[in-house]
Amino acid sequence: MEIPIEIDHGSVASLQAQIFEHFRHRILCGGLKAGTPVPASRALAGQLGVSRNTVLLAYDRLIAEGYLQARVAIGTFVSLELPETCLAAARPAVAPATARGEPSSQRAIPFAGRAQAVVSAHRVALDFWLGRPDAHSFPIKSWRRLTNRALATAGARLTEYRDPAGLPELRQAIADHLSAARGVSVSSDQVIITAGSQSALNLVARLLVREGTPVATENPCYQGAAFLFESHRARMVPVPVDEAGLDVEQLPRQGVMLVYVTPSHQYPLGFTLSLERRLKLIDWARRCGAYIIEDDYDSDFRYRGSPLTALMGLDHYGCVMYLGTFSKSIGAGLRLGYLVVPKALAKAARSAKALLDNGHPWLDQAVMAEFIRSGAYGNHLRRIRQLYCERRDCLVEALHRHFGDVCLSGLESGMHLAWHLPEQFPSAPELQALALRKGVGVYSLSSGAAHDYGGCGYSDRTVVLGFSSLDEHRIRAGIQGIADALADLPAMSRRSSGARAAALVVSSRRPASGSHRPSRSGRPPRP
Amino acid sequence: MEIPIEIDHGSVASLQAQIFEHFRHRILCGGLKAGTPVPASRALAGQLGVSRNTVLLAYDRLIAEGYLQARVAIGTFVSLELPETCLAAARPAVAPATARGEPSSQRAIPFAGRAQAVVSAHRVALDFWLGRPDAHSFPIKSWRRLTNRALATAGARLTEYRDPAGLPELRQAIADHLSAARGVSVSSDQVIITAGSQSALNLVARLLVREGTPVATENPCYQGAAFLFESHRARMVPVPVDEAGLDVEQLPRQGVMLVYVTPSHQYPLGFTLSLERRLKLIDWARRCGAYIIEDDYDSDFRYRGSPLTALMGLDHYGCVMYLGTFSKSIGAGLRLGYLVVPKALAKAARSAKALLDNGHPWLDQAVMAEFIRSGAYGNHLRRIRQLYCERRDCLVEALHRHFGDVCLSGLESGMHLAWHLPEQFPSAPELQALALRKGVGVYSLSSGAAHDYGGCGYSDRTVVLGFSSLDEHRIRAGIQGIADALADLPAMSRRSSGARAAALVVSSRRPASGSHRPSRSGRPPRP
Repeated sequence: MEIPIEIDHGSVASLQAQIFEHFRHRILCGGLKAGTPVPASRALAGQLGVSRNTVLLAYDRLIAEGYLQARVAIGTFVSLELPETCLAAARPAVAPATARGEPSSQRAIPFAGRAQAVVSAHRVALDFWLGRPDAHSFPIKSWRRLTNRALATAGARLTEYRDPAGLPELRQAIADHLSAARGVSVSSDQVIITAGSQSALNLVARLLVREGTPVATENPCYQGAAFLFESHRARMVPVPVDEAGLDVEQLPRQGVMLVYVTPSHQYPLGFTLSLERRLKLIDWARRCGAYIIEDDYDSDFRYRGSPLTALMGLDHYGCVMYLGTFSKSIGAGLRLGYLVVPKALAKAARSAKALLDNGHPWLDQAVMAEFIRSGAYGNHLRRIRQLYCERRDCLVEALHRHFGDVCLSGLESGMHLAWHLPEQFPSAPELQALALRKGVGVYSLSSGAAHDYGGCGYSDRTVVLGFSSLDEHRIRAGIQGIADALADLPAMSRRSSGARAAALVVSSRRPASGSHRPSRSGRPPRP
Repeated sequence: MEIPIEIDHGSVASLQAQIFEHFRHRILCGGLKAGTPVPASRALAGQLGVSRNTVLLAYDRLIAEGYLQARVAIGTFVSLELPETCLAAARPAVAPATARGEPSSQRAIPFAGRAQAVVSAHRVALDFWLGRPDAHSFPIKSWRRLTNRALATAGARLTEYRDPAGLPELRQAIADHLSAARGVSVSSDQVIITAGSQSALNLVARLLVREGTPVATENPCYQGAAFLFESHRARMVPVPVDEAGLDVEQLPRQGVMLVYVTPSHQYPLGFTLSLERRLKLIDWARRCGAYIIEDDYDSDFRYRGSPLTALMGLDHYGCVMYLGTFSKSIGAGLRLGYLVVPKALAKAARSAKALLDNGHPWLDQAVMAEFIRSGAYGNHLRRIRQLYCERRDCLVEALHRHFGDVCLSGLESGMHLAWHLPEQFPSAPELQALALRKGVGVYSLSSGAAHDYGGCGYSDRTVVLGFSSLDEHRIRAGIQGIADALADLPAMSRRSSGARAAALVVSSRRPASGSHRPSRSGRPPRP
C-alpha cells in the first residue's frame, strides 16, 4: 500500500517528525481508520526516499503514543483502542469552525490590565523620551571583566536554586550603599532583589493589595504604578501634587492601605517632597496604619547639594517600603532593582518573592554585587552624574535661548524635567504632534508614561523632556526643531519670533544651576 | 560652643555622613532646639580633627534638608521653621515603645502565602533532592563564549527597555524547539520569556485567577503551583491521579476556570498522562470553557521512545497554556523559562508581563537564544539525557540489589522517581528520618515539594528520589545508607537481611529499561 505523504526536505521539521505528524493527523481526522495496516517501513522508506530508520523511529513514536499498534510477525496497524471520544475531541482540528461549544480562546479572562509605556511610541532621532541612561556610558569593560570572573568561579551556582530574596552579597552591598547615599539604615535581610522597580512594585502589591484595597497615589502618577495597582483591582485614591510634592493634607484620614510616592523627583513633574511633608507623611501613615511606598527611581542624580534623606531613613515605625532600581543608573536591560521592606515584613516578602519567581538570575546579581563592592558603581555614578548635569544645563540653556523665560520644574535631580508651557503656546499634546513632524520627541504627561486621574491641572500645559540619553548636539538640535515647528504655525509665528528676540536678551544668562524654583515669570501654574 | 560628637574614623559611614546624622538626630529628638546656633565650621573641624570642607558639606546638606538655616554674616542656626508636628512625628525615634498608635509593622497584611520548597531542608552529602541538574554538566565554556560575544555587540541593549514578552530571537528559538521536540506548533508571538516556570505560573494566575476562582490541580500536586494559586485566593479543586496520570473523569463537569497538570511526568509520582486522557482532558476543557496549564518541567529527559506530543500540540481550541523551563535542562541559577499561550491570549499575557516586571534581563536571553540556535542546546540535551539515563539505571539497580522487587514509578522520563514502599517498611516520613541519620536525603511527598490536599493514598508509603545530580558512586552509597538505616531497626533487621538475600537473586537482572510499569509484585498501590 502506498499512501500519499509529502515530505518537504527543506522544512525545519525533521523527516521523522513530518512522517509522525502526517500519520497522527490522518488518524485523528479519520482518514486512516482503526485497524488499517500501515505500509511496511522498508516500503515507505523507499517511497519517500528516506532511510528506513527514519520511518521506524516515526512508527515507534506513533506506537508509543497509541496511534499505531504493532503485532508481531503480522505488521503495524492503526490502533483499535483509540477511543471514539478522543476522535470526537480531535476531529474539529480539521474544521474548527464547526466545533461544538465555545472555544476557550473566545472566553473572557479576568485580567484586564493595561501595560505601561516604557519605550517611546515614536522612532525619531531627537527623542527626549524619559528615564533612558546614556548608552555609551554603560560600564561595559568592568561588566565583561566581572562577568568572566563570576563565570570562572560559578561552581554549582548556575545550576542550583538560591535564596529567592536574592544573593546575600548583593543584598549587603545595597544595604551599605543605601546607608551611605540615602541615609537609610537597614539590614540586608530587608533587601529583596527584583527585576527592576516594576517587579518590586508588584511584590508590594502582592503583599498588600486585594480587590478593593484603597491605594493612594500622586496625581499625576507614574503609569507603571497606577496601572499595576489597577490591575490588582485596588480602589485608587488620587492625591494632588504641588511644588512641594504630594499634598499630604489631602490624604484621607483613614482607610487607606498604602500610598505610592516619588519623593526625590515626583514622576512626572520633578518636584521634591519637602522635609516638612516627609515627616507629616510618615506621621499620617503611623496614625492610620498605612504603608508608604517610596519609589526612589532616579535619586542617584542629584545636581545640587546632597540628596534628601529618604523617607525610609526618617521612618521609625516600619511603615515605609523603599524601591530602588539600577535601570536608570546603569541600564534597563539589566532588569535589576530592589525592594527594601520593614523588618516585620521581611519574611512575608521573601515568601511572596518565592511564589512570584523563585528569585533573580545568579550571574547578574553576582556581577552587580562586585560592581558595587569594588567601588566601580560609585565611580560610575559620579561620572554620569556630571554628564547628565551638563546635559541638563545644555537643555535649560537651549530652552532659554529659544523661548526666553521658560518655566521648568524638576531641575534639581533626575533624568528629565517638566516644561510648563506659556499661555500663547499650543497645548502639550499639540506641541508633541508639531515637534514630531520635525523629528523631535517631546511628551505630554499621558504620552510620557504618566497617568492623570482627572483634575490634574498640569496635563494640558506641561511637556516632559528626558535629557540623559542625548548628547548636547542633539539636545540643541531637538530644541531648535521645536522652535522651528512653532515658527511654522501661522498663529504662533509672530509670538515665536518675539520669543526668539526675547531669548537673545537672556541667552547669555545661564540658568540658576539646579534651582527647582522656576524663575519669576516661570512659576509652575497652580493646578 | 563645643558639642559632643563622636566621630568613628573606622566606620563605613563617611565623616560627613556621621556629622550630618549626628545633627539630624539631635534636632529631631529635640536635643538641639530651634534657633540654636551651631558651631562655626572651622571650630567644629578643629574639634573633630577633620577638614573644614567635610563640616561645610555636612552643614550644606543639613541646610538643604531644612534642619539648619544660614543667615548671611551671622551664622548657622537650627531651623525655626521645622514644624512642631514634624518633631512630634520624629520623636518616637528615640522611644518607639511609647509611640502613640499602633506601628504599621504590627498591622496584619493581606498576603498570607506560603513559599514552596525548592532546595532541600537538609545539608547532606548523599542528597536525592529532586530536580537538580548535574552541576558539572553546565555548559560553561559555551556559555562564557556566547556571553562575551553578546557583550561585545550589546550596544544599547543593556541600557534600554525591550519588549516585556522577551527577546524576539529567543522566542523564535523556543517556538522552533517546541515544534521539533514536543509537536507544538506555535508562533513566537505566543511565547513569553519568564524567570523560570514559577514566574510563568504566576503570569497564568494573574491572567486567570481572582479571589474565589476555582482551580483544579492534581492531587498530589507540585507545591509551587498549589501554594501560588492559594496565595491568589483561588478555590482549589484537587483531582486524584493514578498510573495514567490525572483522573480526568473526576474533574467537575463545569465551573472550573483552569486545571494545572504535569502530563509528561506527574509531579511528584512520575506517571505519564495517557493519550486517551490527554484527548479527554482537552475535550473537557473545550466543553466547560476552561484552560489547561501544561507544566512540562522535565520532559527533555525521555529515556524510552519519543516524548508524547504535548497537550498543546493536541489542542485545536486554544485552551492549553504550556510552561517550559531551562532550570532542569541547564540550571536553576539562570532563572529562565517560558510560557506559551493560545494566540487569543498573547496580547493580554504581554500586558500582564509588563506590569509584573517589564521583561527578563537582556544578556541571559541573548546567550540562551544563541545557545539554542547554534545547536549547542540540542547537543547538551543529548549528553545529559544519556548521563541521567545511566544514573537512573544505577539507582534502580541499587534499589533492586538491596530491596529486591521494588515498586517504582516515573522511570520513563524525568530526573526523579517515586518508590512505593513495601508494607513491612516504615512509613515514608519515618524512612526519611532514618536515612537522614545516615547522611542520606530521601523525601516523603510533602518534604519533596509536593502538596497533598488530603485523601491522596501515596503520601504515607511513597518516597521520591532525584538521581540527576548524584554520580553513580554516590547513588550506590546513598541506597546502601538507606539499607543500613533499615538494618539498624530492630523490627526491620531480619526482613531487611531477607531483602538483601533476595536481592542477590535479582541483582544481575537489569531493570526493564525505562518501563514505568513496575514489575509484577511492584505495582504502585491504588490510592
